[in-house]
Parts: sequence; C-alpha cells; structure tokens
Amino acid sequence: MREVAVIGCGMTKFGELWALSMRDIFVEAALKAVDDAKVDHIDSMYVGSMTPGLFVGQEHIGALMSDYLGTSPIPAVRVESACCSGGMAFRLGFFEVASGHCDIVMAGGVEKMTDGADVTYALATAADQEYEVYNGITFPGLYAMIARAHMHKYGTTRKQLAMVSVKNHRNGANNPNAQFRGEVTVDQVVNATMVADPLTVLDSSPVSDGAACVILASVDMAKKLGIPMIRVLGTGAATDTLALHARDDITTLKAVKLSAQAAYDMAKVTPRDVSFAEVHDCFSIAEICVIEDMGFVEKGKGGSFTEQGRTALEGPIPVNPSGGLKSKGHPVGATGVAQIVETVEQLRGTAGKRQVKNARIGLTQNMGGSGASSVVHIFSNT
Amino acid sequence: MREVAVIGCGMTKFGELWALSMRDIFVEAALKAVDDAKVDHIDSMYVGSMTPGLFVGQEHIGALMSDYLGTSPIPAVRVESACCSGGMAFRLGFFEVASGHCDIVMAGGVEKMTDGADVTYALATAADQEYEVYNGITFPGLYAMIARAHMHKYGTTRKQLAMVSVKNHRNGANNPNAQFRGEVTVDQVVNATMVADPLTVLDSSPVSDGAACVILASVDMAKKLGIPMIRVLGTGAATDTLALHARDDITTLKAVKLSAQAAYDMAKVTPRDVSFAEVHDCFSIAEICVIEDMGFVEKGKGGSFTEQGRTALEGPIPVNPSGGLKSKGHPVGATGVAQIVETVEQLRGTAGKRQVKNARIGLTQNMGGSGASSVVHIFSNT
Repeated sequence: MREVAVIGCGMTKFGELWALSMRDIFVEAALKAVDDAKVDHIDSMYVGSMTPGLFVGQEHIGALMSDYLGTSPIPAVRVESACCSGGMAFRLGFFEVASGHCDIVMAGGVEKMTDGADVTYALATAADQEYEVYNGITFPGLYAMIARAHMHKYGTTRKQLAMVSVKNHRNGANNPNAQFRGEVTVDQVVNATMVADPLTVLDSSPVSDGAACVILASVDMAKKLGIPMIRVLGTGAATDTLALHARDDITTLKAVKLSAQAAYDMAKVTPRDVSFAEVHDCFSIAEICVIEDMGFVEKGKGGSFTEQGRTALEGPIPVNPSGGLKSKGHPVGATGVAQIVETVEQLRGTAGKRQVKNARIGLTQNMGGSGASSVVHIFSNT
Repeated sequence: MREVAVIGCGMTKFGELWALSMRDIFVEAALKAVDDAKVDHIDSMYVGSMTPGLFVGQEHIGALMSDYLGTSPIPAVRVESACCSGGMAFRLGFFEVASGHCDIVMAGGVEKMTDGADVTYALATAADQEYEVYNGITFPGLYAMIARAHMHKYGTTRKQLAMVSVKNHRNGANNPNAQFRGEVTVDQVVNATMVADPLTVLDSSPVSDGAACVILASVDMAKKLGIPMIRVLGTGAATDTLALHARDDITTLKAVKLSAQAAYDMAKVTPRDVSFAEVHDCFSIAEICVIEDMGFVEKGKGGSFTEQGRTALEGPIPVNPSGGLKSKGHPVGATGVAQIVETVEQLRGTAGKRQVKNARIGLTQNMGGSGASSVVHIFSNT
C-alpha cells in the first residue's frame, strides 16, 4: 500500500448561495484546490453528494462536475453515504492512490440544499424508510431520543448540550467561510425555538449550500513535484444498523467507535496523540457521543468534559476549531471534505485566529444518518 | 498493485418484482454471491444504485444493505454514476482490494424502479438538468438523436438497429434471469410503438427491478482459500460532456473509447483477444456505437456487422450473450454488476444454452447517461 498525502485544498463559503448553482459551487472549490496544489492535471475524481436528485433534480454528479471543471475525460464518480458522503469520497480516492492505479486524485463534496426542495424529507432518506421515516420520525427527533437517553443514563445536562453550540460558534466566529459567525450564549441556545425536545434550533446544524475539495497524491509524487504535503496516516470506516430501534444502546455510536479504532490502528496512534479533531456535530448531542466513542473522554463524561472547556480551542483536545457543522454550516455532501480542508489548514499553521497551538496530528470524523455510517481520517504534518 | 479476482457471483431474476422491496432484492443477490464464493465473511461493501432517493425515498444505501445483509459493522458505501453505478461500484471495490487495504470485498448493484415513482423523470436526472432536462429532453430522445445522426453519417439502416434487439432477445430467451424471454422479429421491432423516432419500444431496454452481486478477492487470498477464480485483468473508466450538444460528434462515444483503451492497456490485450462482451444496449443504437468505439469493428460499420451476425452467439465476437439490457432487463444500478455475473458464468462455462464457445477473455462495458460515463472491465479464466 503506497503512502498518500493531501497536497492542496479549497472550499467555498458555506451558506445560502442563491446566486450559484450546484455545479458553480463545486467548480469554485475545485479550482481553489487545484490552485493550492499547483498541479497541472488530475487523474481521477471522487465527488461526495448525498441526495442531489431530491435537492436539485440532478444525478450523475461525478461526470457532471468533471465536465464543468474541464477535467473530462478523466474518470469521475459520485460517492454517497448520507451525511458522510464527503468523508467516504476522500476514503475511496485514498484507495485509488494507495493502490498505485494513479498518482493525483481530487476528492470533493458538494450539496445545494436551498433551491426549494423539501429539505426535511430529503434528509430523512438517510434514515430507515420502512421502519423510521414511514412512521414520521425525522433527524431532529432521532437525535433528540439519543439526547434524552444520554441525559437519563449519564446525567448529561441541558446546559452541557448547549455548551457544544456555544464553543462551536465561538470558533466559527473566526472562520471566514462559516455560515454563522455570531457567538451564542447558553441562555440563547436553551431558550431558542424548540425543534425536538430537548434540542432547540441552536442545538442543530443549519441547511446550507457549499463545496469543499482536496487533492490527494502519492507521497512519492508529492516529493517529486516538491509540493508541501499533509500525510494521511489512517482511514477507518464502519456501519451500524440504519434504524435506531435495532441498537443495543442508542447512546453509543458503534460505527464511530469502530471507525476510529480502525483509523488509530492504521495510523499507529492513540486518542492521546491527537492534537485536535473535526467531528460531526450535526446536533449538539452528536458531538458529545462522538468525543466519548472516539476515546477522547470516558463514556458518559462528554457533557462535563465539554462544560469544563476541555474541547475548547485552548483546551487539551480542541474539537471543531472550524466552528463545526453548527456554525460553519452543513451542506451534507461537502461536510466530510470541509473537515479535511480545516485539518490541512490547522496542520499547515494557516488557520489564523482559530489556530490550534502545536498542531501535529489532526483527526476528522464524519457521520451518516443517526450514526449508521462513520468514517475517520488521521493526518500528520511531519 | 495486487492482483484481484472474482470468486463468487449471484443475481436475482430481473423484472417487476412487486412482492419484494429494494433491500429484499439486494439481500437475495448478495446471499447468492456469498454462497457461491463460500466465504464466511466480507471485509467491505460497495453498492451501485442510481437514484433510490427518487425511486423509493431511500438514500444511505451502503449502510442499509450491510445492515439487512447482516454484515454490519463492515464499511459499506454507495457508488453512483447514473446507469454505470454498478460497474463503478465494482471498480472501486477492485481498488480497495488492489491497494492491499482488505482481502474480500462485495460489489453489488440494485435498483427498484417499479414502486410508483415517475421513472422517466428519475432517469432524466442522469442528463444535464440545466441544459437538457429543463428543455424537455428525455433519454429515448437523446438516443434517438444519436441514431438519426448515425444513420445520416454512416448509412446505418432501421433494420440494422432492429437486429440488435432481435439478437439480444434470442440470447435472453435462454437466460432464466431475464425479464423478457420471448424472441422478437425485425418486423415486430420496427412496427412496435414509437418512443422517439426512429426508436420504438422494442429498441429500448425496459424498466426493471433487480440486483446483482459479486465477491472480489486478492488472488493470493483466493489461492489460500482454494476458491476457483476469474481474474480481473483490467479496469478502465472515462467521462465525456454530460450534455450531447457539447460534443464534437454525437455518433462517437468518447468515454467508451477511452475507457476501453485504458482497460485494454491495463490487461495487455486487444479487441481481437476478447472472446465475448457484455455491453450497454440501453437502446439498440447504443450497442452499435459501443461495438465500434470499443474497436470490435471499424467506425460506422456497427450496423452491418450486427446484420451479418458477427455479434451473434455463434459469431466471431458474441455481444450480450445474456440478452443484454434489452431482454434481460435494466434495473439501472444493478446492470453493470449483472454484466459481470454473466461474464463469470461464461468464463466458468456454466452459461447453459447461451454458452459462448471457447470463452477465454470476457469484457464488460457499462455506461451512464448518453455516454458521459463509461467503465470497462476485462476478465480471464486462466
């Protein structure tokens, strides 16, 4: 298996990009990544997108994006894994380079969610259609059940949930690409419009448009080109039951646990070696479960860990320095790649006011549905 | 790059499978493939599916199918490339095994098209939404324009187009999994209900439900397990403009040409070495263009080549011994993998009445949209 590195990255601003179509958004991010990597060609393209058929009436996303980027006739394919489509696109691009089949691959993600589709219905297609969606549940409801169970089992408090959003908005205030750059208080989160008890709108990531792209290359090729690189140390992915009712314990995200373990094993690192992490905070409770299941803190203590500021930018394990899905925005197919863009910037030391000190090893965790899919990557700047 | 082989395969009958849901269909094919390979586990899963969000309101297909097959928590992901989603799923699974990341991968494809969705609209999402679909064109119309241009430029006749369907129905009559096992005559094809002039309903592949799965393994692992195998000699993929108007010449499918060339180069074979081919005959004209662009016959002579019986089961280069999309059926995401299932059966010599004599090297060609994506694989039984 060849060694692989990221040699370039780019993303659009996340938000309501009404003046741009899906293809425009992708091309903007892709050109930024190409410029950043200073490559004159790419060999193959992987595009993560969750449900462009329902959002904008367009499938065949791989070929379309290659066409509009001007890179056809290179092979191009779309990868779908609900909200971790972007992270999985990166993983599959990694395998092609690692296999030796080609040297330079683009992995990107894109979603256009604000063009008028029924977003709640479209996102619900990531849940089990026959057992969950048919009976009326949507994602805020699924995560609200996880939150209630976590509060009941571990004593997690309403305030601790809110602290996730407070921290992520504080970080996102320093991210020029973030959809929401305003800070919020615990009181504002708790008293915001209720979406699914106990989760308010300020516990929830927004509906967004956006794209993010990175360029992967074999380490040998990057050295030959003399391009600065961020090494990919490990990749891990796992699945769980699609429906929540089929799990032994809904407060544990088994796919997160196993995907993290696979990535740690491959990278030969432990959670203690990780300098910072970009994780999938689609709802505040998700970040709490994820930091526990990835081993940053003992199971059940994620709430107090967050409340104590341990995951803050200046804490021992900064989580979501970018602002996370909550503040940065969550164009679902793009999110996993945007996490990698942030990680590359942090490891290069170019993250400005949200720079993590002494960043050496960065981790990204991207999740689909209520945790039925999870993909973790570990990166290093040495 | 490690050598890779197919060690098992299975598929459902194609047709209107009203008693089965999408997940049931996939699991049936997957279990057949597992039984055939006699493996006790798989490491990773790739599922091709074109637009399950529009067909049945379900995305997150990778995790769902792993869940219902009982293979979770293994990594599982969906791959989309319009009607070559299945072929691309196989290619991506190939890369993971070739990279050395894991040893045994399932690559499958599935589509459930008859559950009441607007099939013409759903399929049109494979064309360019902004330039083609918005203006009212659908796939029969796009391929009809290709047919008219081919007739104009090369003198291809209406009868020659019909001969593709006649041949494929004759082959499919011997395929127990085929949707339509009745033979048709040239007169019947020409005088059938017009869909888009000059293409009638008997020039067109049907709307189908179905699934197909294969098990890939490293050649080393297959030897260790003592499992008979069909080697994967080459993989090639390419893209073209999504919209037909943007091409220099709509009678040439550039992506087919380039994907075939890449596969021939990797396999170190020429078109003359190929014993038989399963190709993407979504419409009769498509098979004619494809056999030309893959180099089985000079450009422009595909019609007369077909009329002369050169692509018949007993001809020098049998094309679509399975009956092709026309007779076997075309559950879009499953088609590319079903082509591989047929190829494995032919190379094993177990194809019964439709067995190609002295089959040594088989080729599959799977296409998306009006040829904006194409993926080719070459297999050998030695």
